[in-house]
Amino acid sequence: MMKIAIDAMGGDHAPKAIIEGTLQAIEEYGIEVFLIGKKDEINKYVEDKFIKSGHLTIIDASEIILNDDSPVTAIRQKKDSSMVIGLKLVKEEQCDAFVSAGSTGAFLAGSLLKVGRIKGIDRPALSPIMPTMQGSCMIIDAGANADCKPKNLEQFAMMGSIYMQTVNGIAKPRVGMLNIGAEAGKGNELTKQSYELLSKLNINFIGNVEARDILDGVCDVCVCDGFAGNVLLKSTEGTAATILKLLKQEFTKNTKNKIGALLLKDGLKEFKKKFDYTEYGGAPFLGIDGIMIKAHGSSNANAFKNAIRQAKILFDNSCIEMIKEQITITGVDVVE
Amino acid sequence: MMKIAIDAMGGDHAPKAIIEGTLQAIEEYGIEVFLIGKKDEINKYVEDKFIKSGHLTIIDASEIILNDDSPVTAIRQKKDSSMVIGLKLVKEEQCDAFVSAGSTGAFLAGSLLKVGRIKGIDRPALSPIMPTMQGSCMIIDAGANADCKPKNLEQFAMMGSIYMQTVNGIAKPRVGMLNIGAEAGKGNELTKQSYELLSKLNINFIGNVEARDILDGVCDVCVCDGFAGNVLLKSTEGTAATILKLLKQEFTKNTKNKIGALLLKDGLKEFKKKFDYTEYGGAPFLGIDGIMIKAHGSSNANAFKNAIRQAKILFDNSCIEMIKEQITITGVDVVE
Repeated sequence: MMKIAIDAMGGDHAPKAIIEGTLQAIEEYGIEVFLIGKKDEINKYVEDKFIKSGHLTIIDASEIILNDDSPVTAIRQKKDSSMVIGLKLVKEEQCDAFVSAGSTGAFLAGSLLKVGRIKGIDRPALSPIMPTMQGSCMIIDAGANADCKPKNLEQFAMMGSIYMQTVNGIAKPRVGMLNIGAEAGKGNELTKQSYELLSKLNINFIGNVEARDILDGVCDVCVCDGFAGNVLLKSTEGTAATILKLLKQEFTKNTKNKIGALLLKDGLKEFKKKFDYTEYGGAPFLGIDGIMIKAHGSSNANAFKNAIRQAKILFDNSCIEMIKEQITITGVDVVE
Repeated sequence: MMKIAIDAMGGDHAPKAIIEGTLQAIEEYGIEVFLIGKKDEINKYVEDKFIKSGHLTIIDASEIILNDDSPVTAIRQKKDSSMVIGLKLVKEEQCDAFVSAGSTGAFLAGSLLKVGRIKGIDRPALSPIMPTMQGSCMIIDAGANADCKPKNLEQFAMMGSIYMQTVNGIAKPRVGMLNIGAEAGKGNELTKQSYELLSKLNINFIGNVEARDILDGVCDVCVCDGFAGNVLLKSTEGTAATILKLLKQEFTKNTKNKIGALLLKDGLKEFKKKFDYTEYGGAPFLGIDGIMIKAHGSSNANAFKNAIRQAKILFDNSCIEMIKEQITITGVDVVE
């Protein structure tokens, strides 16, 4: 049975939504969970049957790492926090995965400091999955590495391809490099230097992709430095949110519009579902020697359940092992 | 009377839409226009009254620079192209501005080679205006400089602030730096190093801004390197286009939805208008010693007319002179 460590205290709706999502996940996926956080609070939401069944263990943690905490300091000093205890359970191989909706900074720093990288991977990458018109697309990296070297993008491409292959079941994931023009010679120094490296990898590299085509589904993996990836992700989220807000204003402006919106209710629901992030799980931190899933800070129970599902699929398909194997085979050098 | 050189042959709908927009602009703004391109083709769309009134001169140009042409080579070799002739008219001070919907690459290269930079400005910036919930926001740079130094961002901030002040009439434009976190210490090496420089400028620097907040209207000027700015702009455009496409699908799926959409027709029109790029003119190439406006490649007549209006407002408010003055006063050093 797969064992997953869960940070019960991270996220805007913790611990209630986190625990609800976790209990649903236990029932649906038959996993064993170590739920970490303030025991008194957790007990409010947990039924005895889960503990009796052997599927749930509560681990008391007296501290919580906050979004405002300095990540590295918090990981070093808050030794009894739900985040640090969860990371240690993975490091000590008592758990197969760690899922948290807490501080992204602490999650990244903690994963690096407490669990560590896969040998051969220079820089692990935060790799959220974005819904597209044709399925979904992994953005790798989306913010863990603001400055990157060509070697980093090469490793991102390799890891992203393996993820979409093993976890999403795509035989030959289309790997594109985010760029400001489609032709091979375009871009900044980083993308110009990376193009050839990516071309030589044993993946389905489709060349440069432009930001305007990602949502249309031009590729399955979008390789980029963490700064550009973060801009891509957040402007997509922001644009969608602003448009939905504007539409809502129009739809409630007068009676005629309200009736029109009522008639369109099902259609709008369909539409919203397509962009519902809660269906798409969290962001794996790929390159860490363990399954690390960062759930969205605003996760509700469903979103958190799906982040756990994602950890399970990663585990069932030996994604991390595949990355380890590939990094050894291809002999992608380590540059420190 | 202001004199404007117009590239009649650039853009997806040239020369028809370009000429239509130009003739509308002559009637509305009382400018004098030099319309450059294949004379036979231009004559199809021009009424004699414009020429007789002294507001329009047609200049024959036998060549056209295409989007596929290598920008620098095309500017050097196609000496009798509408683009090169237009640029020369500005350089020789026969015209006060140049407006083109043609190849962006050739427009940028040509402006630099044929017209030249303002003394003291290292790197001119392509600076489109994006509609926001609160008005509009200039993205500077949006693709002219894929790699930037802190000094470049400093000059972009200064130029963007002056533009929004003189052209859009905002007393203290809120200048933000695009970043992947709101706090001062966040970002990549470029933004970390630029933060203090921007803080010291005599502008209303509001600190870091995140991509998700641009469309909401968090700032009037968004300073960034051309790679990040291009990703921001294109992902915003792409997301809006994809969402509108999806909505259209839903709205025509069945009779009930069609009736609902019909009732919402006015509301949806309002909504679309808010994001109608044709209302927002083109992208000035700021830092060139002349008024250079790059209209959208897909410009229709209205979009092109508004790009000409923008050139006129820049001229009427002495925007380029203000930039020249400010670069001398602040003594922002030139780094070559």
